Amino acid sequence: MVYLTRIERFNAAHKLWVEQWSEAKNQEVFGKCANKNWHGHNYKLHITVKGRPDPLTGFVMDAKNLSLLIREYITDKVDHSNLNLDVDFIPKDLQPTTENMVILFWKQLEPHLENCELHCIKLEETETIYAEYYGEN
Amino acid sequence: MVYLTRIERFNAAHKLWVEQWSEAKNQEVFGKCANKNWHGHNYKLHITVKGRPDPLTGFVMDAKNLSLLIREYITDKVDHSNLNLDVDFIPKDLQPTTENMVILFWKQLEPHLENCELHCIKLEETETIYAEYYGEN
Amino acid sequence: MVYLTRIERFNAAHKLWVEQWSEAKNQEVFGKCANKNWHGHNYKLHITVKGRPDPLTGFVMDAKNLSLLIREYITDKVDHSNLNLDVDFIPKDLQPTTENMVILFWKQLEPHLENCELHCIKLEETETIYAEYYGEN
Amino acid sequence: MVYLTRIERFNAAHKLWVEQWSEAKNQEVFGKCANKNWHGHNYKLHITVKGRPDPLTGFVMDAKNLSLLIREYITDKVDHSNLNLDVDFIPKDLQPTTENMVILFWKQLEPHLENCELHCIKLEETETIYAEYYGEN
Amino acid sequence: MVYLTRIERFNAAHKLWVEQWSEAKNQEVFGKCANKNWHGHNYKLHITVKGRPDPLTGFVMDAKNLSLLIREYITDKVDHSNLNLDVDFIPKDLQPTTENMVILFWKQLEPHLENCELHCIKLEETETIYAEYYGEN
Amino acid sequence: MVYLTRIERFNAAHKLWVEQWSEAKNQEVFGKCANKNWHGHNYKLHITVKGRPDPLTGFVMDAKNLSLLIREYITDKVDHSNLNLDVDFIPKDLQPTTENMVILFWKQLEPHLENCELHCIKLEETETIYAEYYGEN
Repeated sequence: MVYLTRIERFNAAHKLWVEQWSEAKNQEVFGKCANKNWHGHNYKLHITVKGRPDPLTGFVMDAKNLSLLIREYITDKVDHSNLNLDVDFIPKDLQPTTENMVILFWKQLEPHLENCELHCIKLEETETIYAEYYGEN
Repeated sequence: MVYLTRIERFNAAHKLWVEQWSEAKNQEVFGKCANKNWHGHNYKLHITVKGRPDPLTGFVMDAKNLSLLIREYITDKVDHSNLNLDVDFIPKDLQPTTENMVILFWKQLEPHLENCELHCIKLEETETIYAEYYGEN
Repeated sequence: MVYLTRIERFNAAHKLWVEQWSEAKNQEVFGKCANKNWHGHNYKLHITVKGRPDPLTGFVMDAKNLSLLIREYITDKVDHSNLNLDVDFIPKDLQPTTENMVILFWKQLEPHLENCELHCIKLEETETIYAEYYGEN
Repeated sequence: MVYLTRIERFNAAHKLWVEQWSEAKNQEVFGKCANKNWHGHNYKLHITVKGRPDPLTGFVMDAKNLSLLIREYITDKVDHSNLNLDVDFIPKDLQPTTENMVILFWKQLEPHLENCELHCIKLEETETIYAEYYGEN
Repeated sequence: MVYLTRIERFNAAHKLWVEQWSEAKNQEVFGKCANKNWHGHNYKLHITVKGRPDPLTGFVMDAKNLSLLIREYITDKVDHSNLNLDVDFIPKDLQPTTENMVILFWKQLEPHLENCELHCIKLEETETIYAEYYGEN
Repeated sequence: MVYLTRIERFNAAHKLWVEQWSEAKNQEVFGKCANKNWHGHNYKLHITVKGRPDPLTGFVMDAKNLSLLIREYITDKVDHSNLNLDVDFIPKDLQPTTENMVILFWKQLEPHLENCELHCIKLEETETIYAEYYGEN
């Protein structure tokens, strides 16, 4: 059993803001991340699949095909987007935190993988923060 | 003569959009960067000063003080901001490209440096794009 | 269940030296790391917590608060320190190796985490060496 | 139980090419990686061992010794080599993909580790692709 | 005057080998780099142009267009290639060292730049070696 | 004219402390860097030489030979050392700041380079601070 990871990148704007809270409460909880006019990040996304290398090709999965799937179902939708407003698979009432996004990305990609299993989605938001999801409830 | 560099980081949203152009023209020239709802980046800023090391302290400039000046005049103003809307020293009719920002950052910081000379402002916008300005006309 | 990681950095001096051994034996086992006058490193520390994202905030834990806890209980104590001499929670008869430090850091931080669980402490000592601890005996 | 990782690097040429396939089929499956005249990579190898830190030395394993073993059994054999032609432990009918190499590297190194256990072999081939193997069937 | 840099990557095989020398002489001078069966690298290429930002677009040059030119005239030709055998613009009797390649890349790209000036070509071959060329004789 | 850079690394302890000042004054000026018991860093050193590539070898200088010279005259002397106490070419009354060290390293290495010219010494002390010296008075 071998784990294969493909990294893709995207750049997006977002803010953290709970609608049912006052502006003061949002500022208190989210600080600068609650700026009404948005801020943004360069995101670095690691997608890890697991499987046995094919005896002929030596591939768990062709990394080029994995890249195409990631682009179709995730990064083409979020790149140069506003994560709060523009992305069909991010609910409008859910904060676009790294923690929530790794779960949403899993739901987007997992149904489209064949002959191997999705193992981990890791998303780096800044040089100092990243989240990982392994499909665990 | 020694060159000392301090790196600071900030995260911000922006878009590239020329008001006097149609939406179609903006899309044609700026592509995804013209998304009306913004996108964003993790910016990495290198500030280089030049001077002779002080015989006693060995400092061209105390890097902690350089960091404080960069924060006061640049990064506190742009971090978690919208570069098109929120920053007093970025003119509203100027595109917030890396090329324009290194010039604006120079004008912000240069008057506040004492006992050493500003040499270069370098701004990395993504893993593959950066701009540098040396105060040349 | 999502895993959230916060990275912090610190710079410190140390040496590896077993008191009950001769200088020759220390040199033989630890080589350059036994230099009596110390050497040092830029350490990069990854702290990973696990939990379910809060339905309102989308946070497993507020990364700013995690950072404050790491600073209070770990990095404020070890930054710009001598790991053999200056740190109250490092026993004087224990070598300050990366392996021992990840265990000590776990003991420092774990009691102070609320509403989420400490999952992993990873410490990078150089470009080529790092250690990880998951709380396993 | 602590996990200690040592990173080593090597540079090598390879191609992906199934002998029993036509040139057209190889091009279709492997694309540019099937270039008859080879291409190459800077590989970054992470070797992780697990064990309990020695009470005296604080080492799970001396990282210098781990480095010597990795060099003797892996990187001295693959560095500046052609992975399809030059390496005694890579079968000539096996594609030198990252997935296959982490398994072969495990078989090379694992018998030579004493007093600690091999936990993971991770191999980065490019900025965007890496594979990991934990000894699982 | 602002300097704008675009980074592109490519992977290639090569060897260093002077035809008029004996095998022993080649081994003596080039060491492992003279392996007859080739070795390879992940190359990281920085292309820097200089100019004044356009008053409307804020671009010295559109980084997307710069990327397209670099791909057309350089990286599409060298990516997944053998630098000694496959590249039309690398003379067969010239060693494909980083030093020679930055000069060849300059000659490839410089005639195709409009409205701005080529300033520097920097090529990283490994984590520890890179070369730069500024068009100086 | 091509510029070739070789990177080497070393790890060392140091402190910033002016003997003729009181402890309070040292703390005021140098802050944490004045810790009596030292602290330390992983230093990353870039040595750049300039010259014309040899027509046969394609080398400005053999990077392996450059590495050997850097080790002999610089890094073997500073690696795993105390920069204030252990290094013969660092005067005891000079602060071992990055600014002072790039000048001292230049004086160490420059006399030993043949057939090419020393162009720049760059020393990275942390993720956010580096100094460069070009031999300018």
